[in-house]
Amino acid sequence: MNIVLLDPRQTESELWLISSKRQLEHLQQHLEIQVGDTLKVGIRDGKRYLTEIVDITEKAVRLKPLQEEPIPAKLPVTLIVALPRPKVLRRLIMDAVTLGVEKIILLHSYRVDKSYWQTPFLQQLDHYVQLGLEQAGDTIAPHIELYKRFKPFVEDVLPTLINADSPAYVAHPYAENKMPYAIEHSCTVVIGPEGGFIPYEVDLLIKNGCQAVSLGNRIIRTETVIPYVLGRMFSTR
Amino acid sequence: MNIVLLDPRQTESELWLISSKRQLEHLQQHLEIQVGDTLKVGIRDGKRYLTEIVDITEKAVRLKPLQEEPIPAKLPVTLIVALPRPKVLRRLIMDAVTLGVEKIILLHSYRVDKSYWQTPFLQQLDHYVQLGLEQAGDTIAPHIELYKRFKPFVEDVLPTLINADSPAYVAHPYAENKMPYAIEHSCTVVIGPEGGFIPYEVDLLIKNGCQAVSLGNRIIRTETVIPYVLGRMFSTR
Repeated sequence: MNIVLLDPRQTESELWLISSKRQLEHLQQHLEIQVGDTLKVGIRDGKRYLTEIVDITEKAVRLKPLQEEPIPAKLPVTLIVALPRPKVLRRLIMDAVTLGVEKIILLHSYRVDKSYWQTPFLQQLDHYVQLGLEQAGDTIAPHIELYKRFKPFVEDVLPTLINADSPAYVAHPYAENKMPYAIEHSCTVVIGPEGGFIPYEVDLLIKNGCQAVSLGNRIIRTETVIPYVLGRMFSTR
Repeated sequence: MNIVLLDPRQTESELWLISSKRQLEHLQQHLEIQVGDTLKVGIRDGKRYLTEIVDITEKAVRLKPLQEEPIPAKLPVTLIVALPRPKVLRRLIMDAVTLGVEKIILLHSYRVDKSYWQTPFLQQLDHYVQLGLEQAGDTIAPHIELYKRFKPFVEDVLPTLINADSPAYVAHPYAENKMPYAIEHSCTVVIGPEGGFIPYEVDLLIKNGCQAVSLGNRIIRTETVIPYVLGRMFSTR
């Protein structure tokens, strides 16, 4: 947690209020905060500030905003990922948010177990976003969309995301072209499930405007490939 | 598991033998193997082969090697990481191995809790290496070294890793220069602990030949920053 992210309602009075148990525990256990300390605070989907701690009780910390601070820039990327195993979902969302992905789409695919769509973790997406923003020092939540049907998404929604200035790439081990690097434009990146997209799915993605590109001959787990690809594509940042 | 990695002793007879409980369970549960199927198999620190399954019992699978296959190339990088929390260690080693890091050094630092050096997970490093190799389809284990004292390592060992053709970079949020990308040479990358290196440590690293470089103004977790940095630096691969 590198900033404390507050709901706008907690910042309506002159003094702001931290009352979340999770945030209070972190501040007390890891930062050993004291009255008079400064603290970085963000307002969810709003600005970020340096604040001063004016009061600490067991159930709340009260803050005075001192000055506005810059919010880190987002990466101009839409990340489309086959819905991963529930255990992986938390980390995947947190990492994508921490790295600054603008929009995340979770998609069904043949090799996605249908039970994954029933996981209670999907109810926690907003919490994972919060953790990712607090890690990065960011305040602006990315858009997250879920599509439980592959074909209608690829045929009807995906083409609306692609244009001459913003191409889409699907990571595919047997593609001839390599995944680009050091790009300066926006783009969409499509990452398959464990075991990969089936040939029908790759064909449909290509037919609907994706370029199949390779990341070399190592097979990398979904949750690892996301920072690997983002570091590669947006390497000039 | 994208290849089954065997100990050389399991490949001494004409037919090779898979007898590890973990590997057998994976083959039966996830791949539903049958006699006559082909299977990718590596010999630890040796070659990689396509094999054919000739016999399946509850306690063993017997294989016939068919033909040699190429091993993916390593990244020419030495990764020096402050020893992470035990929970993170497994994933960090697995990811570094999967991505092809040649040499991994785990290092003490002021913000590394001393108890981390007592974790039983440190006895499991070779197992994590095995899992990372099996994920990547690689057979060659990286070298792993542990240094429990920061100063002697930085003053005596680190300079031997650095030369004009192989620089060292330490990720540091306040550095003016950016972390390089698309490099073609070998290098050493130094990643600090949660909370970062203390100024004394950064100064000592610089004094002993490291260049401090920034990764932008997002604060990224250690386990996430490793694939992010490797993707960025070796983006031409």
